[in-house]
Amino acid sequence: MAAWGERLAGVRGVLLDISGVLYDGGEDGGTPIPGSVEAVARLKLSKLKVRFCTNDSQKSRRDLVGLLQRQGFDISEGEVTSPAPATSLILKERGLRPHLLIHDGVRSEFDQIDTSNPNCVVIADAGEGFSYQNMNEAFRVLMDLEKPVLISLGKGRYYKETSGLMLDVGAYMKALEYACGIEAEVVGKPSPEYFQLALKEMGVEAHEAIMIGDDIMGDIGGAQRCGMRALQVRTGKFRSQT
Amino acid sequence: MAAWGERLAGVRGVLLDISGVLYDGGEDGGTPIPGSVEAVARLKLSKLKVRFCTNDSQKSRRDLVGLLQRQGFDISEGEVTSPAPATSLILKERGLRPHLLIHDGVRSEFDQIDTSNPNCVVIADAGEGFSYQNMNEAFRVLMDLEKPVLISLGKGRYYKETSGLMLDVGAYMKALEYACGIEAEVVGKPSPEYFQLALKEMGVEAHEAIMIGDDIMGDIGGAQRCGMRALQVRTGKFRSQT
Repeated sequence: MAAWGERLAGVRGVLLDISGVLYDGGEDGGTPIPGSVEAVARLKLSKLKVRFCTNDSQKSRRDLVGLLQRQGFDISEGEVTSPAPATSLILKERGLRPHLLIHDGVRSEFDQIDTSNPNCVVIADAGEGFSYQNMNEAFRVLMDLEKPVLISLGKGRYYKETSGLMLDVGAYMKALEYACGIEAEVVGKPSPEYFQLALKEMGVEAHEAIMIGDDIMGDIGGAQRCGMRALQVRTGKFRSQT
Repeated sequence: MAAWGERLAGVRGVLLDISGVLYDGGEDGGTPIPGSVEAVARLKLSKLKVRFCTNDSQKSRRDLVGLLQRQGFDISEGEVTSPAPATSLILKERGLRPHLLIHDGVRSEFDQIDTSNPNCVVIADAGEGFSYQNMNEAFRVLMDLEKPVLISLGKGRYYKETSGLMLDVGAYMKALEYACGIEAEVVGKPSPEYFQLALKEMGVEAHEAIMIGDDIMGDIGGAQRCGMRALQVRTGKFRSQT
């Protein structure tokens, strides 16, 4: 294995995943992962540009940042790339009126969006909101459309909370894809457009950036396919056998 | 198109799907599809052998037959091939102790099965039972197993009830497959073993049998791959564009 200095040569920007890297979420707000508050503080003191690149779709950017600040992290709203605001932009650009299958915590990000007479479905990590009734409602909206459009905020398989592993939006995206015979559009890691958005927001080229995450597919694979370097932490959902 | 006489030459047995062919289910017990009670009666008067081959996994065989009898159908328990009793047999043969993610209506079919310290997950059409909490519990059981075994009673995408289209077990099977990175074993149509069980139970060879169903994949494709003839009705979930 190459020395760290060699592996990091030319790196100007660091993209940090949040859940499983900075903290493990939970009903009580979760807890920081040991050493992560200090690591972020140290990065901020360095010459490196730092951006937080999350797939969290349960919380608005404001709520997420507030929660992390209370845990001691040096983080502000403008430093976060998250899928809900990115989706909101796409909906406006394409004139899409979504049926929203999302968590109440993120609903404020869609305040400016027309949801009457829906012509697409937007699915995010709805948690307990993934009831049979809500899933069936989204399914029926899709089946009633001539050209069903399903937009998924990330496609994670699962994530880790303090109580244990939690099914993520990707599982429910797959359920609707299969039931309707369609393919979802993913806004979030590992979508190349999403990484490129984060890079643009931080003003760094792909070859100058490193992504640090706990998800081998969403973080590591996705970043590498965009020409970035990537580093998998052994916290969060990391499991040695997968 | 060949004449009916030619297309049915040599047929000795008829396999009938139930939901969408004989009746549309619903909260009130559902309603028979016009003409189906009479069609079954006429088949029973003919020389043809008749077997009811369903993927219904919400109800025990006894309850399903009782419901159909009250709607006027000439049907008895011994004439029905359904996935729950077939699964029960498989669990016993392989010494599997399931975590059951199933509808209460079918629980009696698993009365004789040891469910302590589970070493597999059995998923059936749980309807409202497909809550986030129940799905996450099944997911965690699978993730804790060294070699996760997921058995799915059918893999239907959706079915039709009197209130409209309903997500079927296949969607939730796909969700767990994706989250765990595994492939489920399917007991039910279109699994070849399941059709062969039905043929064996009626004492007819594949080339002498015709399957009548509303599901292009589960009924028609599955039966044809087993060497049977098949006929798709335009009732139930049938949609001209799919």
